Amino acid sequence: MDFIKTYTAYIESELSKLQLPSKPAALYEPIRYFLQIGGKRIRPMMTLLGAELFGLDKEKAINAALAIELLHNFSLIHDDIMDDAPLRRGYETVHVKWNTSVGILSGDALLIKSYQLLEQQEGDLRQLLHVFNKTAIKICEGQQFDMDFEKTKQVSSDEYIEMIRLKTSVLIGSSLELASIIAQSSEIDRQHAYNFGVNLGLAFQIQDDILDLYGDPEKFGKQIGGDILANKKTLLYLLAIENGDEKQIEKLAVLYNESNSTKKVNETKLVFDEIGVRQLCAVIVNNYFDTAKEELLKINVSVENKLKLNELSNFLLNRTS
Amino acid sequence: MDFIKTYTAYIESELSKLQLPSKPAALYEPIRYFLQIGGKRIRPMMTLLGAELFGLDKEKAINAALAIELLHNFSLIHDDIMDDAPLRRGYETVHVKWNTSVGILSGDALLIKSYQLLEQQEGDLRQLLHVFNKTAIKICEGQQFDMDFEKTKQVSSDEYIEMIRLKTSVLIGSSLELASIIAQSSEIDRQHAYNFGVNLGLAFQIQDDILDLYGDPEKFGKQIGGDILANKKTLLYLLAIENGDEKQIEKLAVLYNESNSTKKVNETKLVFDEIGVRQLCAVIVNNYFDTAKEELLKINVSVENKLKLNELSNFLLNRTS
Repeated sequence: MDFIKTYTAYIESELSKLQLPSKPAALYEPIRYFLQIGGKRIRPMMTLLGAELFGLDKEKAINAALAIELLHNFSLIHDDIMDDAPLRRGYETVHVKWNTSVGILSGDALLIKSYQLLEQQEGDLRQLLHVFNKTAIKICEGQQFDMDFEKTKQVSSDEYIEMIRLKTSVLIGSSLELASIIAQSSEIDRQHAYNFGVNLGLAFQIQDDILDLYGDPEKFGKQIGGDILANKKTLLYLLAIENGDEKQIEKLAVLYNESNSTKKVNETKLVFDEIGVRQLCAVIVNNYFDTAKEELLKINVSVENKLKLNELSNFLLNRTS
Repeated sequence: MDFIKTYTAYIESELSKLQLPSKPAALYEPIRYFLQIGGKRIRPMMTLLGAELFGLDKEKAINAALAIELLHNFSLIHDDIMDDAPLRRGYETVHVKWNTSVGILSGDALLIKSYQLLEQQEGDLRQLLHVFNKTAIKICEGQQFDMDFEKTKQVSSDEYIEMIRLKTSVLIGSSLELASIIAQSSEIDRQHAYNFGVNLGLAFQIQDDILDLYGDPEKFGKQIGGDILANKKTLLYLLAIENGDEKQIEKLAVLYNESNSTKKVNETKLVFDEIGVRQLCAVIVNNYFDTAKEELLKINVSVENKLKLNELSNFLLNRTS
């Protein structure tokens, strides 16, 4: 698992080398700030590992990897404004530390910067740009569906999964697809690489919903049950509504307006446990994870070349935080 | 001058053919709305005329032309949020008609759509993307300087001109530069085409400052002196400060806080006239316009090929509205 540290350090080092002008300070300072507050760097790591999967040196895909990471960070800065989130990774969000205009404009600049990195990536630029654009627009669509769902009474678990597929999983798939374009893999391997990433991304994201309530509080680093307190329509909640009986659904409706935090989380959890939504969710996670592994298996390269992606997948899905 | 109508109609027709999904409606409806409320379509027209300048059919540059127009409209939607502008072209702005989140996200999607159009443009995509990215980032920088200036006491006329160069003129230059890349013109002609556009853009933008106060009220369609009422640091104002005597500058400072609109506009205008800022501004406009014409003259193509760009330039600079 040591390679994760090495690769993260490499990505951080390359990110720190990004040439950003000093002026206007209010445009570039927030970008520097936001890129420095960290993150797991999973997406650029996928691109680097994808390059190696197809026999390239990871350095050959670094510009695409950084482009993907900047695209991700652009979307976070703008999402934080829309969600009015005060904190990101434990630090003040850009629109809170500065203001909304700075959040909008520095997010815009970060998106454009991501295209500037893509512009420097060797390979079939038309194909790279096509995948990058398609991905970026899907992130926006996912974010819009996410906001729509907050105001929608009836959201099905299928709609929810489609939303997170757009908002987060496609980006993981595309991280690998860009690598396969750079490495000029076969069309079929490119598809498998993309599918591997999307399914892994779905498993990872749904796992996140589970961890929010069932994670180890010490390791998770967030408030347990935060999603319940925020009345978020997570997959746990939607599966509870879809599978609960009349009494259980009514109980959840009452708890929706409960003001005592501890009571709200604990009693909602009790209803969830009665219905068995944790297990239902776990089955879904495992299905996506199995599909991801099958897709990786199908890629026509040596087993050795798949080792790191396999390890990283297991690491991501076995985390308790 | 008939070609302007024909070309505008062609651009409108191609814009209306843009494939935008129906869902999520809150993402794509604002984009459709904003593209329909019009605008002069000067920038895409420059790209089409630039293609013809270098001997290509205008249809060969339509994707780049539309990409430029979408980039421009993205920046307007986001600027309107930052400036909290209620109206654009006489219609409600996106963040007012919907809300700020919708303005942010549909603006983002429009920017990405502009890259999707660029992706479909025939030609050296790496060069096209390079120019497009450089332009997009300068628009952001210009907008940030513009916002900074609102809070800065001392802004020089040179700083102001640099701000509008970044925020608006570079885009006109790049509209022509993209065309020259598509037409594979010589490096030197490409530079002249870009310079022509930037200087024309500067002349056009400064002309706008003059028209705001000295335009024909019937033709201008806006409130005369709107910039003075909004206490905007336009070039007229900055030149007045730089060229006025102590008494005149003090008078302007008093008028800055004047609450009677008619008095504020009329008396500020009197001070401006005493100092002669309209003439000072006109000299600057003419200088940029002359430089633009010289740059066009230097381009190594037939005089016939330059006719339309010449006509459009004269039309833009001789307008009273």
